[in-house]
Amino acid sequence: MRTHYCGELRKEHIGETVTFYGWIDRRRDHGGVIFLDLRDRSGIVQIVSDPQRTPDSYEQANALRNEYVVEITGRVTQRPEESLNTRIPTGEVEIYADKIELLNAVRKQLPFQVSVADTETVREDLRLKYRYLDLRRERMAQNLQLRHQIVKAMRRYLEDLEGFIEVETPILTRSTPEGARDYVLPSRVNPGEWYALPQSPQLFKQLLMVSGLDRYYQIARCFRDEDLRADRQPEFTQLDMEMSFMSQEEIIELNENLVCHIFKTVKGIELQRPFPRLTYAEGMERYGSDKPDTRYGLELVDVSDIVKDSGFKVFRDTVTNGGIVKILPIPNGNDVISNVRIKPGGDLFKEASEAGARGLAYIRVRDDGEIDTIGAIKDNLSEEQKQEILRRTGASSGHLLLFGAGEAATVNKTLDRLRQAIAKEFNLIDPEKINLLWITDFPMFEWNADEKRLEALHHPFTAPHPDDLSDLKTARAQAYDLVLNGVEVGGGSLRIYQREIQQQVFEAIGLSPEEAQSKFGFLLEAFEYGTPPHGGIAYGLDRLVMLLAGEESIRDVIAFPKTQQARCLLTDAPSSVDAKQLKELHVASTYKPKS
Amino acid sequence: MRTHYCGELRKEHIGETVTFYGWIDRRRDHGGVIFLDLRDRSGIVQIVSDPQRTPDSYEQANALRNEYVVEITGRVTQRPEESLNTRIPTGEVEIYADKIELLNAVRKQLPFQVSVADTETVREDLRLKYRYLDLRRERMAQNLQLRHQIVKAMRRYLEDLEGFIEVETPILTRSTPEGARDYVLPSRVNPGEWYALPQSPQLFKQLLMVSGLDRYYQIARCFRDEDLRADRQPEFTQLDMEMSFMSQEEIIELNENLVCHIFKTVKGIELQRPFPRLTYAEGMERYGSDKPDTRYGLELVDVSDIVKDSGFKVFRDTVTNGGIVKILPIPNGNDVISNVRIKPGGDLFKEASEAGARGLAYIRVRDDGEIDTIGAIKDNLSEEQKQEILRRTGASSGHLLLFGAGEAATVNKTLDRLRQAIAKEFNLIDPEKINLLWITDFPMFEWNADEKRLEALHHPFTAPHPDDLSDLKTARAQAYDLVLNGVEVGGGSLRIYQREIQQQVFEAIGLSPEEAQSKFGFLLEAFEYGTPPHGGIAYGLDRLVMLLAGEESIRDVIAFPKTQQARCLLTDAPSSVDAKQLKELHVASTYKPKS
Repeated sequence: MRTHYCGELRKEHIGETVTFYGWIDRRRDHGGVIFLDLRDRSGIVQIVSDPQRTPDSYEQANALRNEYVVEITGRVTQRPEESLNTRIPTGEVEIYADKIELLNAVRKQLPFQVSVADTETVREDLRLKYRYLDLRRERMAQNLQLRHQIVKAMRRYLEDLEGFIEVETPILTRSTPEGARDYVLPSRVNPGEWYALPQSPQLFKQLLMVSGLDRYYQIARCFRDEDLRADRQPEFTQLDMEMSFMSQEEIIELNENLVCHIFKTVKGIELQRPFPRLTYAEGMERYGSDKPDTRYGLELVDVSDIVKDSGFKVFRDTVTNGGIVKILPIPNGNDVISNVRIKPGGDLFKEASEAGARGLAYIRVRDDGEIDTIGAIKDNLSEEQKQEILRRTGASSGHLLLFGAGEAATVNKTLDRLRQAIAKEFNLIDPEKINLLWITDFPMFEWNADEKRLEALHHPFTAPHPDDLSDLKTARAQAYDLVLNGVEVGGGSLRIYQREIQQQVFEAIGLSPEEAQSKFGFLLEAFEYGTPPHGGIAYGLDRLVMLLAGEESIRDVIAFPKTQQARCLLTDAPSSVDAKQLKELHVASTYKPKS
Repeated sequence: MRTHYCGELRKEHIGETVTFYGWIDRRRDHGGVIFLDLRDRSGIVQIVSDPQRTPDSYEQANALRNEYVVEITGRVTQRPEESLNTRIPTGEVEIYADKIELLNAVRKQLPFQVSVADTETVREDLRLKYRYLDLRRERMAQNLQLRHQIVKAMRRYLEDLEGFIEVETPILTRSTPEGARDYVLPSRVNPGEWYALPQSPQLFKQLLMVSGLDRYYQIARCFRDEDLRADRQPEFTQLDMEMSFMSQEEIIELNENLVCHIFKTVKGIELQRPFPRLTYAEGMERYGSDKPDTRYGLELVDVSDIVKDSGFKVFRDTVTNGGIVKILPIPNGNDVISNVRIKPGGDLFKEASEAGARGLAYIRVRDDGEIDTIGAIKDNLSEEQKQEILRRTGASSGHLLLFGAGEAATVNKTLDRLRQAIAKEFNLIDPEKINLLWITDFPMFEWNADEKRLEALHHPFTAPHPDDLSDLKTARAQAYDLVLNGVEVGGGSLRIYQREIQQQVFEAIGLSPEEAQSKFGFLLEAFEYGTPPHGGIAYGLDRLVMLLAGEESIRDVIAFPKTQQARCLLTDAPSSVDAKQLKELHVASTYKPKS
C-alpha cells in the first residue's frame, strides 16, 4: 500500500521506509549500481540498487527498462554531496530499494520517448494515436492538471462567493441557432425524427432564469459541425453562466472578479482592475478588430478625410463611394520591410490579399525625413496632405506606412492581419504580459452579403440597447466580449425578456412569424409567464486553458482531441456501423465511395 | 440593485431599507391593505402596501397578480403579534413597500399554480411542457438544489481529500460495449462513418490510468438508446471514478468515506461504517437479488434438500433437474393474503408469472399450528418434511409460505418480486432507514440464452478473481456494487491490465480475435506499454439524488428530462430536419409513415 507519491519525498523523510508506485523514467547502470528514476504524477525520485546494500532488489532492478510499472519499498537516504540534484524537489534524497515488484512490463518498442529528460518533438499524429503515452509526458500531464485547476477555481468562486447553482442541460436536444451547423442523430423510438446536439445551452439557461433559478452555471459540452480549418474541435467546453436581475455593469464586475480569482489561484498573478474597455467602434477604429491584442501599439490611423480630396483617384473614389483609407504605421519598418514583400508575390501582400485587399500602398519615411512612395501617391498628394499624414500617424524617419483602402470591413480585416504579422516579426509581444479587455456596444446585426439579410452578430436573443429601440436594424446590442491577448475568451449579453422585442429581432433577421413560432414558440411563450430581466456570458474553456498553459493549439489542453478531419486517431472514431443498426434507426447511408 | 434575497430577511434587519426581486407568490387584499408574498429562490417574504403608509406603491401593488416579476424597495418592520408566522424563516418581519417596479407581467392563464401555498397534483405532461414553471415550484427547486449540493460534496471530497483530477472525455466517440444500444450520428466530414455517444467513459478512464493520471473522476453524461419502459432516460449522469495501484479493499474504503461525506454534508446524517457486505451468492440465496433491500427481513429459505426426495413430483423433478425450491415466509400472511390472490388471476400470481414462474404453491399455518395447503403438497410431503420446512423457515401460526420452484434464476427473480410487493403491502419499510450494502464476488459471466453465449455480468474489462484464473468461465469477478435501500447506486470493479487475460475474456464472451482487434485493438495495444493495475466505480447520479430527495422518478431530479417516449415536451425534440442537412450528411431517412 502506497505511503507516498514519488515527488513528495524530502530530507525530512530520511530514515523512513516508504512504498510507492510508478513508471521507470530512466535507468542507468553505473558500474554495478543501478539508478532508477521513478515517475508518478507527482514527479520523480531516484532509486538505488546494488548487490551489496540492496541484494534483494538488485536482480529485479537490473532487469527493468523504461516505462515498466513497479512497486518499490525502500529506505529514504541522504544523497552524497556530489550527486545532489537541485533541479528536482526530491533531489536531496534517494531510496535504497529493499523490494521491487514488477507490476507490468513494456513489450513493444515505444513509439516515442516519454521521459521527462527527453525533449524530442514528436509528430502530432503519433501523439494522438498513442495519446495514453503522450499524456504521460510532463508537458501534457501539466496541461491536464492546469485545466483541472482552472475549472476548480471557476467552480469554487461561483459556488462559494456568488451563490451560483450548477445545472445540467440536455445533450440530446433540438437545433439551436448559433450560426454553425448542428450535429444531428436519428431517434429510433421516434422514426424520421432527429435530435441535435447543442451548440450551447443558450435557450435552456434562459429558461432556467424564467424558472427563478437566479444564478446558473455549467461547465458545458458544446458541439459544432464546422469545417475544421482553424484550431477548432467538433466538441468543445465552455463555462456557461446566466443570472437574473443584474445590469451589464454588475455582470461585468462579477466576471472581472471571477477572472481575477482564476489568475490568482492558478498562476499567483494579481490582475489590475477594472479591465480596460473599448467599444466595438473604437476597436475597429484603432485596431481594425473586435478582439485586438493590446499588448503592443501599432494602432491604425484613419486618413480618409485627408485623402478624400486628393488627386490620387483610388483614395478619392474609395472615400467618395463610402469606403475608408487607413494606415498601419510601422516604426523602423522602412529598413526591415522591402518593397518585394509589399508587392504582389510578397508575404505581406499575400496576408493583405487573403483578407480581401487588392493591393498595398505604402509610404516610406527615409532617414532624412524624406518621403518615398509609389509615383501615384508622390505625385497626387499635396505636400500639405503628406505632412498631415506624417503628423497624424506620428511617423518619423524609419517609419513605413501601409495603406488600406476600400470597404471598411475589408480595410480593417487587412490591417488587423498585417498588424499581427508585424508585431510577431518585430518581437513586439511580451509573452509575460496579460492584457484583458472588454469590448462593448457591439452592433445588433451585421449584413450577410451571401444571404442578403441581416444576421445577429452574437445571437438573436441579445437585448438591444434601450436607447436604440427606435431603429433596431442599426441598434447597439447590450453585449460584451472579454478579450485576452487578442483572443476572444468570453462573450455575453443581456437577453431579451419581452416577447414583442424578441419578435422584432426575429423579424429583423428575416425569420417569418411562422418560422419563429415553429422554432422558438416555447421561448416566446415562456416570455408570457413572468420572465425576469437576465443576462449571461460563456467562456471558451479550451482557449482559456490554452492561453494560460502557453500552448498554441487547443488540442494540447484536451485529453482526447480530434484531428482537423474530426477523427480520433486513438479509437479510430468515427467508424462504420452495422447495417442492422441503421435499419433499426430507419436511416440509410447515401454515400457512394469513389472507386 | 439587490441588497438581499427574499428568504434572508430577519428581525435583525428591522429598520433597514432593502431592495429585492422576485415573483408574486400570492396577493391578498385585506380591506384596502395589500399583502404580497414575494418569492425568489431563497424563499418568501411578506410585503405590505396601503394608501396611508406606502402611498407611492399602493396603486402598483393593487395591480399585481400571481407570478408577476417585480423589484421592490421597502423598510423592514416587525410584524404585529397576531400575524407572526412561525412556518417560514422570514415570519417575524414584513416589508413596507416604498417602491414597486413591475419588471414583467403574466399575460396568459397559468397552466397550473406554482405558489408554495399550492399543493395540487399536476399532470406530468403539463409539468414537462411548462418545465420553466414547474421548476419554480418549491419541490422541484429544492430537488435541483439538492442535486447541486450532492455533486458539490462529491467534487470537494474527491478533490480536497483524495487528490482526484477531473478530466473530460469525449462525447463524440466510438461504440463501447456496455450491453445497451448506442446512439450514433453521421459524420459529415467522414461520409459513411458514424460517431457513437458513450454509454460510459469506461475505456477512456482506463486509458487515463495507462497515462499515469493515478486518480480520475468526472461527472459524466452517458447515453443509452434503450426502450424506456422503466424509469430510464436516454441520457443520464454518473459520477465516474478510476484509480491506479489500489486494492478492492482500498477502493471500497475510499468510497465508503465518499458516501459518508455526501450524507453528512447534504443531509446531516452520520452513516455507520463499515457498510455491511454480501457476496453475490449470499444475496441470491437470502434475497433472490443482487440488490436486496435489507431494510426489512422476509429472507428466503432454500428447501430443495428437504423436498428433493418427497412424493411431490413437481418439487422432486425440479431439484433432480438442477433446479431449486425456495420459500418466501410471510409472517401474518395467512390472514391478509387470500387464495384468490395467489391463484391464476390474482395479483401475486401475476407478479410471479411476470418473473417467469408458472405457478405459486403455498403453505398456510393456521392458528392452531395446523398446516393448510394444496392437496398435492399435503398428501405428498411427509410429516417430518412438513415439520422441517416449518422449523427452517421459522414459521408459526399465521405464517404464509410461498414457494418458488424451477431454475434458480427464475425462482430468485420471482421471490424477489414477491418479497418487495409484500414488504410494501405490509408496511415493512421504514422510509427513514438508510441501508447501504456492498455486493461482492459477482460471477464474471452469465449465460445469454437468446444468443447462446456467455456475456459479461458487468463489462468485459472486469478483472477475474486471482484464485479463479484456472477456469475463467466460472470465475468470480473482482467487482463490487453499492446498493442503497434495494437500488443499485454504484457499480465498480478492478480492471484487467494484462493483455493475455483481456484476450481470454474476449474469447470467453465469443469475440473472435479479429473482432477483438478491430473493436479494442487500441486497448489491447495499450496493455503492452506499461499499464498499471487499476480499478474504479461509477455511481448513477440521477438515482442517488432521487433516493436522497425522496422522489420516485429520476425525471423529478433532472432539470429537462425526456418522456418515456424519449421526447422533450418543452422543446419538442426530436424533430424533423431539412432534407438539405441530411444530404450534407450523406444519409437518408428510410421511414415511411403509415398513412
